Amino acid sequence: MKKTALLLIDLQKEGGTSDVVGMDGILQNTAELIRACRTMKIPVIYTRHINRSDAVGLANGEPLNEDGTPSYYNSNTDSIEIPDMIKPEATDIIIDKYRYSGFYESNLDLMLKGLGVKHLILGGVLTDVCVLATAMDAYYRDYQINIVEDMCGTTTEGAHMAAMLMMANWIYDIKIFETKQLRKKMNGENYQLWESTAPDQLQFSPENIKEVFSKLKSN
Amino acid sequence: MKKTALLLIDLQKEGGTSDVVGMDGILQNTAELIRACRTMKIPVIYTRHINRSDAVGLANGEPLNEDGTPSYYNSNTDSIEIPDMIKPEATDIIIDKYRYSGFYESNLDLMLKGLGVKHLILGGVLTDVCVLATAMDAYYRDYQINIVEDMCGTTTEGAHMAAMLMMANWIYDIKIFETKQLRKKMNGENYQLWESTAPDQLQFSPENIKEVFSKLKSN
Amino acid sequence: MKKTALLLIDLQKEGGTSDVVGMDGILQNTAELIRACRTMKIPVIYTRHINRSDAVGLANGEPLNEDGTPSYYNSNTDSIEIPDMIKPEATDIIIDKYRYSGFYESNLDLMLKGLGVKHLILGGVLTDVCVLATAMDAYYRDYQINIVEDMCGTTTEGAHMAAMLMMANWIYDIKIFETKQLRKKMNGENYQLWESTAPDQLQFSPENIKEVFSKLKSN
Amino acid sequence: MKKTALLLIDLQKEGGTSDVVGMDGILQNTAELIRACRTMKIPVIYTRHINRSDAVGLANGEPLNEDGTPSYYNSNTDSIEIPDMIKPEATDIIIDKYRYSGFYESNLDLMLKGLGVKHLILGGVLTDVCVLATAMDAYYRDYQINIVEDMCGTTTEGAHMAAMLMMANWIYDIKIFETKQLRKKMNGENYQLWESTAPDQLQFSPENIKEVFSKLKSN
Repeated sequence: MKKTALLLIDLQKEGGTSDVVGMDGILQNTAELIRACRTMKIPVIYTRHINRSDAVGLANGEPLNEDGTPSYYNSNTDSIEIPDMIKPEATDIIIDKYRYSGFYESNLDLMLKGLGVKHLILGGVLTDVCVLATAMDAYYRDYQINIVEDMCGTTTEGAHMAAMLMMANWIYDIKIFETKQLRKKMNGENYQLWESTAPDQLQFSPENIKEVFSKLKSN
Repeated sequence: MKKTALLLIDLQKEGGTSDVVGMDGILQNTAELIRACRTMKIPVIYTRHINRSDAVGLANGEPLNEDGTPSYYNSNTDSIEIPDMIKPEATDIIIDKYRYSGFYESNLDLMLKGLGVKHLILGGVLTDVCVLATAMDAYYRDYQINIVEDMCGTTTEGAHMAAMLMMANWIYDIKIFETKQLRKKMNGENYQLWESTAPDQLQFSPENIKEVFSKLKSN
Repeated sequence: MKKTALLLIDLQKEGGTSDVVGMDGILQNTAELIRACRTMKIPVIYTRHINRSDAVGLANGEPLNEDGTPSYYNSNTDSIEIPDMIKPEATDIIIDKYRYSGFYESNLDLMLKGLGVKHLILGGVLTDVCVLATAMDAYYRDYQINIVEDMCGTTTEGAHMAAMLMMANWIYDIKIFETKQLRKKMNGENYQLWESTAPDQLQFSPENIKEVFSKLKSN
Repeated sequence: MKKTALLLIDLQKEGGTSDVVGMDGILQNTAELIRACRTMKIPVIYTRHINRSDAVGLANGEPLNEDGTPSYYNSNTDSIEIPDMIKPEATDIIIDKYRYSGFYESNLDLMLKGLGVKHLILGGVLTDVCVLATAMDAYYRDYQINIVEDMCGTTTEGAHMAAMLMMANWIYDIKIFETKQLRKKMNGENYQLWESTAPDQLQFSPENIKEVFSKLKSN
């Protein structure tokens, strides 16, 4: 498991993310995996979503307060900070980003190349936006993606399931883990995972999406 | 409706896309809209997904034939060509792309800026991969996105619905049309659309995804 | 002069830049122009060249100290800070960069687009590396470039002249000012400048480079 | 010399390049090196500079004919084609580009990564624009650059010398060869080159530029 980095997407104090389904568990799983990675000298990289307080460079339609400041991820507030329970060390790489993908107009790719990274362990929020977008952009750049499913979440279970299945279907060398299973792998124990072996393997309908999604969950 | 372009994603002869749900209707709607755009001097831009026949530059895990050539979108076959019923004119802009997003390592943004485009009308395949990825990348670059829902499709209705809802939820100035309604707009008639007015308006669960999706469909 | 920004390249405390020919004058001219721009509400944007102290992401062959830290622009030292005499205000945009061009793996383009900038006033160091590279990258993105010649410098007069002439020859809508002349323009007074009207107008040889360069200098 | 590619910049039929100093020798040297590379299975990649005949996406100030078509590199003319004496094979990678750098809004980086390239052998025209810009952009992306000096040229000797010296000074792991010397290296014979060992080693003034430049020329 050399040349691997843990990439954590937008795990910040932003209150808006309190609506994420299962946020407490996500943070606990993340804290646990960070500890394991640090033990194994796997670099931990954090992205932070930022909206400048003066509203320069916001995405189209980004919600604003009455005073013209951004409602979410305001650079002048501690909403952009990373929670204490998963806080970075002084030497960790922190990537500030202004759009959904961690790669857009940031130095993420430069740093990953500098570290010689090939494999990314990916978790964070929101599964169906920033995690999905960053995973896609990483795949374009030939990184091999490992999603930790229970370290990801979004505002509904439906969107979480659908986004996980899209990544499973279209990132052709993706591996999907639960935190516990990835920990086992890192400990050299037997473990389970879901692994892509062909395009579009997990086709789903509204009727069977729960059942299909359960195939990704290796307990 | 000045400074608008029609952007068609990966509508090619590739046989693999014959599995797209409703492909015939998608092509018919596209042909109809192309005619309307040409009448109004709206530029029509096509992306083509390409895998080099010698397999250089393929995405990780891209399926290969026994002889090592790519199974899909092989540059040496007519699978990369655009179907006759929607065929480009000699002066149209055609963007060859090697990853899901039409913007990645292509000249799409340069051409759109050169045309002075602000608004994109977007359709094509697959809704949950190349259309979604291109729409996101366009949104990062401050284009205003208009998706023509019945000009888009993918391998399942479930994934089509989920991807449409994700775009509706996270592209904050998106407008979603049916072909017929967009035609009415272009003709100066009364029309219907779905328009984003706040983040994450169309939250969905496996149980209600069909019902929520129906809100996007303006007939 | 709407939709203009002042972009200052790598004017930092880095001791290595003490070798720049005419550094004192460059800083004085810059301080003067910053004041003028602030009066006219022209945004002031600073780039900072950064080499991470842990040496992650350095360019090939970047010089290192014996302890493995970068010799120049070390992120853990105040060499990366901006000198007091031209110091940023709290709300200014500061772009950290890890390669010569201010646009590479940074959010500079996003911010310039967010500000609606079309015209860039450009100065800083080194003329033949970071200024040249950033000007080229800005030109690719359709910004109109205005170089303030006596706000730029490098380690030799020869390289400064050659780089200025290359920009004059190949950036087809470039304008080149002296600080004093640009101040006159901003004050609505008569002013002088050098302006490109065709490609490759200032061809030079070793023998005549000084004479050709003098055409750019409008006193 | 594994993981090496030969990258040829803008060697096209464009009549405007007939003004390049020493164009015949450049083409002969290029033809010779192409043969050597093909023998050693080193991939040969060509960039072509293109201006769309309908003038969409041109750089600011790009010269136009009276009918509005671009004066140079018009996509509707054979000026964009590669001369017969160095013509590509059917399977070669050809990168069409719309700005000076071969990396800007093109798929060059994707293809180089797909080939596993680390070392680039670089030649072409114009030394002080497209070659310089492409070399810089390649250096940002951690490729190791080898310039073949007598395969490069521009409209004056002065600009050629200055651009070569800038690359020598600021690309910290650059190697500079003459065609003959690189051929010797490829043949396993003793050879000469100029190699960077520290920043800014070849400082020059108008008075000594010829003499300093001669240090790069290993005969």
